[in-house]
Amino acid sequence: MLGKCITNVRNNVPLVHNITNYVTVNDVANVLLACGGSPIMSDEPDDVEDITTICGGLNINIGTLNKRSIEGMFLAGKKANELGHVVLLDPVGAGASALRTNTAVKLMDEVKFDVIRGNISEIKTLALGSGTTKGVDADVADAVTEESLDSAVAFVKELAAKTGSIIAITGAIDLIADSERCFVIRNGRPEMGKITGTGCQLSGMMTGFLVANPENKLEAAAAAVCTMGLAGEIGWSRMQEGDGNSTYRNRIIDAIFNMDEETLDNGAKFEIR
Amino acid sequence: MLGKCITNVRNNVPLVHNITNYVTVNDVANVLLACGGSPIMSDEPDDVEDITTICGGLNINIGTLNKRSIEGMFLAGKKANELGHVVLLDPVGAGASALRTNTAVKLMDEVKFDVIRGNISEIKTLALGSGTTKGVDADVADAVTEESLDSAVAFVKELAAKTGSIIAITGAIDLIADSERCFVIRNGRPEMGKITGTGCQLSGMMTGFLVANPENKLEAAAAAVCTMGLAGEIGWSRMQEGDGNSTYRNRIIDAIFNMDEETLDNGAKFEIR
Amino acid sequence: MLGKCITNVRNNVPLVHNITNYVTVNDVANVLLACGGSPIMSDEPDDVEDITTICGGLNINIGTLNKRSIEGMFLAGKKANELGHVVLLDPVGAGASALRTNTAVKLMDEVKFDVIRGNISEIKTLALGSGTTKGVDADVADAVTEESLDSAVAFVKELAAKTGSIIAITGAIDLIADSERCFVIRNGRPEMGKITGTGCQLSGMMTGFLVANPENKLEAAAAAVCTMGLAGEIGWSRMQEGDGNSTYRNRIIDAIFNMDEETLDNGAKFEIR
Repeated sequence: MLGKCITNVRNNVPLVHNITNYVTVNDVANVLLACGGSPIMSDEPDDVEDITTICGGLNINIGTLNKRSIEGMFLAGKKANELGHVVLLDPVGAGASALRTNTAVKLMDEVKFDVIRGNISEIKTLALGSGTTKGVDADVADAVTEESLDSAVAFVKELAAKTGSIIAITGAIDLIADSERCFVIRNGRPEMGKITGTGCQLSGMMTGFLVANPENKLEAAAAAVCTMGLAGEIGWSRMQEGDGNSTYRNRIIDAIFNMDEETLDNGAKFEIR
Repeated sequence: MLGKCITNVRNNVPLVHNITNYVTVNDVANVLLACGGSPIMSDEPDDVEDITTICGGLNINIGTLNKRSIEGMFLAGKKANELGHVVLLDPVGAGASALRTNTAVKLMDEVKFDVIRGNISEIKTLALGSGTTKGVDADVADAVTEESLDSAVAFVKELAAKTGSIIAITGAIDLIADSERCFVIRNGRPEMGKITGTGCQLSGMMTGFLVANPENKLEAAAAAVCTMGLAGEIGWSRMQEGDGNSTYRNRIIDAIFNMDEETLDNGAKFEIR
Repeated sequence: MLGKCITNVRNNVPLVHNITNYVTVNDVANVLLACGGSPIMSDEPDDVEDITTICGGLNINIGTLNKRSIEGMFLAGKKANELGHVVLLDPVGAGASALRTNTAVKLMDEVKFDVIRGNISEIKTLALGSGTTKGVDADVADAVTEESLDSAVAFVKELAAKTGSIIAITGAIDLIADSERCFVIRNGRPEMGKITGTGCQLSGMMTGFLVANPENKLEAAAAAVCTMGLAGEIGWSRMQEGDGNSTYRNRIIDAIFNMDEETLDNGAKFEIR
C-alpha cells in the first residue's frame, strides 16, 4: 500500500523547492535525490516566486531563519498556494525563541499547508502555545509513548481538523494524521537522534512524496516516514565496529537510495487508528 | 598531457576564493583540498575584496544567491580582474528564475571570466536567451548527444569566441572549448547526477586547476573535468552492495584525493575537435 | 584525568548555541552530537538572544561572517556573558581581511570569552597585530615547533593573562593555556589538515566540554583537543586503500562518537608546562 508511493516518486521525479536551514541543507538535497526527487534551494525574496513556480512542491523549514529568508518564506508560500502546489512546514525550534514561534504561527495564518511536520514539542507549541522545546529536540516530558498514545492520537487528529493540514509528529512513535485517520508508525532507531537533520531530511522527502502522490497525501506522508525509519533500520544493520554517527548518516541516505516498493511494503510498521 | 595539470595543483596549492551556495559548499571545500588546493569562502561585500586579494582565483557560483551576496560577487569579480586573477562563473539555475538569469548576464557584462562552466541548459540560456532549465538540472531536450555533437561543438566554440571565455558544458559528454579547440570528454558516470553538487565541486576544483596552470588554461579546465569524471568512475568501482549516493559522494572525493598524474593520464577519455 | 571530561559531556548533554560559518556547520553539529552534546544554530539578531538563553554555551565562529551575523554575534555574546554562560571565540581568517580582524578584536573588547581558539597565525594577529594568515590556514613561518616551543608557551600564557581567556592554539603541536599552566598536546595527524573544518568542529565540541566541566575549564579545553586529535589518529588507523579525505572526515567523527573515558585517558598525549 505505502510502497507504491515511492515508486510514484521515482517515476514522477518531483522537483521540490526548499527554503531550509544551512545546517542540514546538503543532506536534504541528497535525500531528495536518493528517493527519486530533485531538489532546488532558494530563499531570496526576489528569487523564490520564480523558483517555486517551476517546482511541484515547497518545503519551508524555519531552522536558521533570518529576516530576509522569512520574507522569502511568505512570498514563496503564497505563490505555491496560488498555483495549487504542495506546501509543507517544518517549524524547527518553535518554542525555543519568540521569532521562531511567531514566524511559524504567522505562516500558518497566511499560508495553507498540506503538512505540518515537527517533533512533539514543536507541534504542541503551535497547537497549545505550550510544550517545552529543548533547543531543536523534543523535550522528554512531551514524548509520545504507548501509555500516552490514545490521547496523542486524539490530539493530532483534532489539530489536523483545526488546521486543515496533515499533522506529522515524529519521534520514537510517529503519528501522521488528518482529521479522521492517524497512521501510528513504529519504524526507526533511537540512534537516528545522534545525526543532525534527520527531521529536516524527512520534511524534504515528504514534500516530494506528496507531489508524486497527489490523490493520497496522507498515505504519501506516512510512506515518507516509513521510508526514513526503515532506512534507519537498514542503515543500522550495515554498521561495522568502529562506525559512528557520521557513517550512520551515509548509510541511512544510501538505504533510501536503494529503497524499493517491495522493501518498503515489507518493512513498514504501522497501524491506522 | 592533462596529468601534469594536477601535479601542478599539488605543487602550487592554489588558494581559491569561493562565493558559492550553502547547499554544496562543504563538498566544494573538501574537493579543493582533495585535489591539492586550499579553499576560502566569503560573500560579504565588506569582506570579499580583501579575501580575493590574497587568493589566486575566484569561483563565483550563483546557487542560493541573495542581494547581499550578489553585491559581493560584483565587488570580488572586479577586484580579481584588476589583479589579473583567474575568475570562473558557475551560473547555477540560469533560466530557472529572472534573478539568476539576469545576475549571470550582468556578471558576464561587468566581469571578465576565464571560464564559464554550467550544464547545457544554463549555457544555452546565457548564449541564446533560451534553453529550458529544469531547476538546477539540464533539460533532456537540450542534452549533448553523439548525434548533436557536431553542432554542439560549433556552438560552444562560437560562444567562447563571442565571450572571450573558455566555455565548459558538462553532462554525459563534456565540451570544454575556447574559440579554436574543443575538448570532447567522455569520462564520468550517470549516477553522478544523483549526488548534489558535483557541478559545484567541479567549478571550485577547476578554478584551482587554472590558477596552477596559468599558461595552459584550456588544458587545465579539461584536466579538471577529466579528474572529476574519472573520480566518478573510480569511486563507482569501489561501491559495495547496499551503498548509495551518500557513500558515492565520499568515494568520488576520496578518488580525487588519491588522483595522480599517471592515473589521470591513463584514465582521461577525450578527443580534441 | 582528562577522560573524566568527556564522561561529563555525555552525562550533561550540553546544549550549545553556534553562530558559525555555513561551510562546516553540518560537521560542527554532528561532532557535537558525537561527543554527547546537542547543537543549535542561529545567527539572526532577532533570534540569538532567546536561543542563547536556553543554551549552556555559545560558540562564535567568524568564518563567512556578514553584517547581519556580526550583529548577532555581539548580541548573543553579551547575553551569554550576562547569563554567565560559557563563550568561545574562533577567529577564522583573522589577519586575512580587515573585516575579520576588526570583528574579532571588537568582539574581544566587548565580550568576555572563556576561550579563544584558533591557529597560530590567527592568534598572533589578535595578539600582536601581525602574523601572516594564509587564508584560513596558518602560515608555515608561524608554526609552533619543538624549537620554538619555549617561546610559544611563554607567548600563549602571556596572552591568556592579558585577555583573561584560555588561549587554545591548534596545529601540529597544540598549546592550551591560562596564565599559569600550558597543556602541550601532541595528538593528531597531519592529514587532518586535508579536511575542511576540523578547527571549527573542535571549537563547537570544546564549548560543550567547558559547559559540562565548569569547575575545570582548562582541563576541559585540553580534553576536547585531545579528543579531536586522538579521533584523528583512530580514524586514520581505520582507513582502507582507496580512502581519502572524505572518508577520513567520517571516520574522525565516528571515532568521537565512540570515544570513552578510558580510551581518552590512554590515548591523550600531553605535558603541562
